[in-house]
Amino acid sequence: MSLLVTGSIGIDTVRTPFGVSEDCLGGSSIYFSMAASFFGPVRFVGVVGADCPFDLNEVFAGRGVDLAGLEIRPQSKTFRWAGTYAQNMDDRTTDSMELNVLGEAPPEVPEAFADSKFVFLANTMPKLQHELLTQIKEPAFVAADTMNCWIDDHFDDLKSLLKDIDCLIINEDEARQLAGEHNLIKAAQIILDMGLSVVVIKKGESGSFVCGDDQFLLPAYPAAEVKDPTGAGDSFAGGFMGYLAQAGKTDFPTLKKAIAYGTVTASFTIADFSLNGLSATTRTEIDRRLESLRKLTTF
Amino acid sequence: MSLLVTGSIGIDTVRTPFGVSEDCLGGSSIYFSMAASFFGPVRFVGVVGADCPFDLNEVFAGRGVDLAGLEIRPQSKTFRWAGTYAQNMDDRTTDSMELNVLGEAPPEVPEAFADSKFVFLANTMPKLQHELLTQIKEPAFVAADTMNCWIDDHFDDLKSLLKDIDCLIINEDEARQLAGEHNLIKAAQIILDMGLSVVVIKKGESGSFVCGDDQFLLPAYPAAEVKDPTGAGDSFAGGFMGYLAQAGKTDFPTLKKAIAYGTVTASFTIADFSLNGLSATTRTEIDRRLESLRKLTTF
Repeated sequence: MSLLVTGSIGIDTVRTPFGVSEDCLGGSSIYFSMAASFFGPVRFVGVVGADCPFDLNEVFAGRGVDLAGLEIRPQSKTFRWAGTYAQNMDDRTTDSMELNVLGEAPPEVPEAFADSKFVFLANTMPKLQHELLTQIKEPAFVAADTMNCWIDDHFDDLKSLLKDIDCLIINEDEARQLAGEHNLIKAAQIILDMGLSVVVIKKGESGSFVCGDDQFLLPAYPAAEVKDPTGAGDSFAGGFMGYLAQAGKTDFPTLKKAIAYGTVTASFTIADFSLNGLSATTRTEIDRRLESLRKLTTF
Repeated sequence: MSLLVTGSIGIDTVRTPFGVSEDCLGGSSIYFSMAASFFGPVRFVGVVGADCPFDLNEVFAGRGVDLAGLEIRPQSKTFRWAGTYAQNMDDRTTDSMELNVLGEAPPEVPEAFADSKFVFLANTMPKLQHELLTQIKEPAFVAADTMNCWIDDHFDDLKSLLKDIDCLIINEDEARQLAGEHNLIKAAQIILDMGLSVVVIKKGESGSFVCGDDQFLLPAYPAAEVKDPTGAGDSFAGGFMGYLAQAGKTDFPTLKKAIAYGTVTASFTIADFSLNGLSATTRTEIDRRLESLRKLTTF
C-alpha cells in the first residue's frame, strides 16, 4: 500500500569522535525515505530553500521515492543543523540550528498523494502534523514522532493529534515525560489510552518496546561500529513503516516484524556518516541482518 | 551437578517509594540461593555474627539449600546495609554500611563441598574470591560478580582472578570501566580476552548481553510493579547458575536458556521487598514467565 512521509530536509554538520561531516544531507524525511525505500515506493513531502545544494532526484534515483511533494521556495533558506556527539556517542549537543524554511508554512500534500494509506508524520510542531494529516483523505495507519519541547509547550495540540493517529514512535525519556510515569510499561499504557492503538518506545542501544494489542521487546542490533547516530530514529521509523506498507496490514505479528526491520535498517545508518551507511546497503543485506538479529535474540 | 555459592548475608534496611523494609534478610548468597533453589540443590558458604536474627534453616526449609558452609561467629556482628531508592527506582543511595564480619577472614569451604562443580563467587574483594576458589578441587564452571571499587582499587587481583574463572557477571557501567571502552560489544570482547569464556553484561531494565562463543541479547521481563530492586542481580545469577547446574552443561544454547531463567527469576524478586517476591513463587510460575518472555521477544 502507498506510504507517505512528511518531515524535514536539512543541511547537517555532524561532529563525532570519528570525524566531521560538514554540510551533508540530513533531515527526518530524508533518512525515513531512504530506509523505507528498501521495502517499497515512498511519497515524499518536504520543503527546502533555494540554497539547497542537494539534488534529491539524484539522491533517490532508482529507489522509488516520488518527489512530487518536494517544494523549493526561492525566497527561503534550507533548514540547517549542527551537532556534536560526545565520546560515549549517546550524549549530543546541538551547536547551532537555523529553522529557516521550517519556520514558515508547511509544504502542501499534492493531490496525487491524498489517497495515501500509510502516513508518517516526522517530528515537528504537533499543530503542523495535524494540518498535514487533514490533507490525507482516508489513511489506514498513521504514525508520528514527537519530542520533549512539544510535550512541554504544545501538550494540548499533541493530545489532540494523538486522538487522530494510530501509532506514536517516541524515545524512552519522552515517553516518561508524556505519561508522567517513570515505569515504561505503565507509561506505554497511559500513552495508549490517549487514543492510540500502538506505542513504540525507542530505547537507543537497548532496543525498543512496543505496546498495543500485545507487547513486544526487541534489543537493538549489537553494533560494534557506531560512527554517526544521526538519523537512527528516522531510519528505524522508515524501516518500520516501509515494511508495514509493503505488508499492507498492521496486526501484531506484522508490527513485530516491522519493528525488527526498523531495528536492523537503523543499524546500517549509524555505521557511517550521513546517508552513506544506509545507501550502501541492500534489501538482501537487511534481510540477512534480520535473521542474524533473530538468532541473537532466540533462546 | 553440584552448585556452590559464597557471598554475603546481610541485615538490610531498604527504603523505596513503596515503603520501608527494616532489618530484613538480605545479602548476595541469600538471594542467589533462594533463586537457584528452584532448579536444584545449593551448597551455601557464608558467615554471620552472633546477632543474626534470622534462622536460615527456616528460611530455606524444604528448598535443598545445604547450610553446612554457614559459619556463625560468636564474637562478631552480621553485615548490615541500609539504602534508599530514588523515585525512578534506578538510582540507589547507600545510607549506611557496617562490614562487620565481612571485614574479617572469609568462611571456610567445608570439605564436603570441595568437589563442587558449579561455583558462584558473589561480589567481594577479588583476593577473597580467589582464596575461596582455591578450596574447590576441580570446578567445571566458575562465575563471579564484581563491582566498581574493586575494578578501581584491586585491578591486578581482579585480573588474576579472571584468568581462573569462566564467567564474569557484571553490570554495564562496570563492564565499560573494566574494559576502558564505552561500546558494550567491544567492551565484552576486551573482557573475554582477559581469560574468560563467557561475559554476561546486565543492563537493568534493558536486559542483558552475553558474549562467548556466540552472542545473545535478552530484554528484561517487563515489570509493571517494581517494589524493591535489591537482590535482582544476585537472583539473576542464581537463576542462571541454578539452571546451568541442573542442565550440567554450558554450551551456548544452554547458556542462553540459563540467561532467560535468570531474567525471569529476578523479575519475581523485584516485585516485593526482601525475599518475599521470590519465596512466594514456584518453579511452575517461573516456567510460565519464561514462556511469556519467549513470546514477548519472538518475531
